[in-house]
Amino acid sequence: MSLLTVGTVAFDAIETPFGKTDKIVGGAATYIAHSASFFSKRVNIVSVIGDDFDMAELELLRKKGVDTTGIEIKEGKKSFFWAGKYHLDMNTRDTLVTDLNVLMEFNPIVPASYQGSDILLLGNIDPNLQIKVIEQLTARPKLIILDTMNFWMTPAFKPALDKVISMVDVLTVNDAEARELSNEYSLVKAAKKIMSMGPEYLIIKKGEHGALLFHENNVFFAPALPLEEVFDPTGAGDTFAGGFAGYLDKTRDISFDNMKRAIIYGSAMASFCVEKFGTQRLKELTHKDIEERVKEFIDLVQFDIEIED
Amino acid sequence: MSLLTVGTVAFDAIETPFGKTDKIVGGAATYIAHSASFFSKRVNIVSVIGDDFDMAELELLRKKGVDTTGIEIKEGKKSFFWAGKYHLDMNTRDTLVTDLNVLMEFNPIVPASYQGSDILLLGNIDPNLQIKVIEQLTARPKLIILDTMNFWMTPAFKPALDKVISMVDVLTVNDAEARELSNEYSLVKAAKKIMSMGPEYLIIKKGEHGALLFHENNVFFAPALPLEEVFDPTGAGDTFAGGFAGYLDKTRDISFDNMKRAIIYGSAMASFCVEKFGTQRLKELTHKDIEERVKEFIDLVQFDIEIED
Repeated sequence: MSLLTVGTVAFDAIETPFGKTDKIVGGAATYIAHSASFFSKRVNIVSVIGDDFDMAELELLRKKGVDTTGIEIKEGKKSFFWAGKYHLDMNTRDTLVTDLNVLMEFNPIVPASYQGSDILLLGNIDPNLQIKVIEQLTARPKLIILDTMNFWMTPAFKPALDKVISMVDVLTVNDAEARELSNEYSLVKAAKKIMSMGPEYLIIKKGEHGALLFHENNVFFAPALPLEEVFDPTGAGDTFAGGFAGYLDKTRDISFDNMKRAIIYGSAMASFCVEKFGTQRLKELTHKDIEERVKEFIDLVQFDIEIED
Repeated sequence: MSLLTVGTVAFDAIETPFGKTDKIVGGAATYIAHSASFFSKRVNIVSVIGDDFDMAELELLRKKGVDTTGIEIKEGKKSFFWAGKYHLDMNTRDTLVTDLNVLMEFNPIVPASYQGSDILLLGNIDPNLQIKVIEQLTARPKLIILDTMNFWMTPAFKPALDKVISMVDVLTVNDAEARELSNEYSLVKAAKKIMSMGPEYLIIKKGEHGALLFHENNVFFAPALPLEEVFDPTGAGDTFAGGFAGYLDKTRDISFDNMKRAIIYGSAMASFCVEKFGTQRLKELTHKDIEERVKEFIDLVQFDIEIED
């Protein structure tokens, strides 16, 4: 089994109420790959970087079973760079710098060796590029998962976003984005409308308030772990998606019931991600850490009520 | 087993994005009693009303096993009246009118027949009055639950609030209030600080995002049911507290594990409350409705993951 993902591999500079970093490695595909690598035997990345990138970081990913063949290195160009600042509530952030650099001319190419990947996870990039990736695949993956954000809901990108949404099985957005996409305030109504646009499954991420999985008339709720401190939320959504997709890939089961488990694993991975800056915490993790964290999720929501039918 | 509660029995006028009401019956103790009456054999209310109150509403409560002996009727005076308007997100509301009326001279008297109540639920009123109720009890109840709000965290009431908090076993507040009370943004840190002020158990209500129960180093999370529409959130917190306390009273078990179940029942009751204006939905409910709703809560969070130890 293998997982194919496309997304940014980039530099971030992050400021939170707890501290700030210089340029550190970030990008959606980086977080996805780190997270998924704990589950998937093989994670195939399609991305683009400049020759300023820290190549040791790619080596680290390769050691974890990530195939970086599809990461194009543009000589003489700079990697995508984002700088941002979070406020105390960690739900809002100000973008300080966005240097698209190599991302401006990104034309994703899926290497021949990536064909036949079982699951495709489209990280948050321009929907036109996400479509290009789908169109290059010789066989449709068993499951296509799409992550996106409000930026692509603006008129210039909305037609492409609508198109890619119609092509996928699972969409992940946050609560504000679900409302924007559907023009519905109620998340239940929003979910129905969005599922009518194509995806059979919808995941609505609510940050510290957990995540909802919708499918037909069913809904599953996964809590977020109450943490003493959210140190840096950067990449939490990507880490969640990577854990979710990686778990589905590993278990070879894309049923609704298994997606519930996958969401718990994704949430557990995200709960680690926010404990330190960037990918630092993900790099230190062991499988034992993950199992213990999942156990905490079980304890958090478990109760026994006998209903008399 | 019996439950004693103190709180307002009053009139409300409510405006939401879905409609508005004239004067309807409301007040914390009204919602608490309606909700608890589905579980407790006997609910004893201490409150005060004017002679303008709709006495048929008291008769309705009595038919449900609520003892209204402790509701003082002030001749020639008017009942407490509140008018408010909710916005689309239902988390914020503007108070349009607050006519304290009989509440200005409320001096709660616990009737002799109420002595020996097993559980005391102090509804959200002036903490000085909550203390007066505790001090009138000849034997300490098995469990004292305190509901309060940000209004009593202002300097004029804070000393009394701190005192009553130190006297109780369970405190329920919302997330903003937990932060204000503790001066901690992290709810985990806030919970530790608040439990050090007295209560062994803390419930943090997060509205549409569910509720957290803290006890020592344990935490339990109960989701809110994702609803198509929150029609009117008035009284949801009181209904939650009433269901929680009523369930504990009925089951004669105040352990942490049983409190988890009680929170699910309280959440189920609150999910009904918001479906119609005022107490209307609570008045129509059957036990079968409640069991079916609790089943929905179970389905919402249930997943099976086997952890290898």
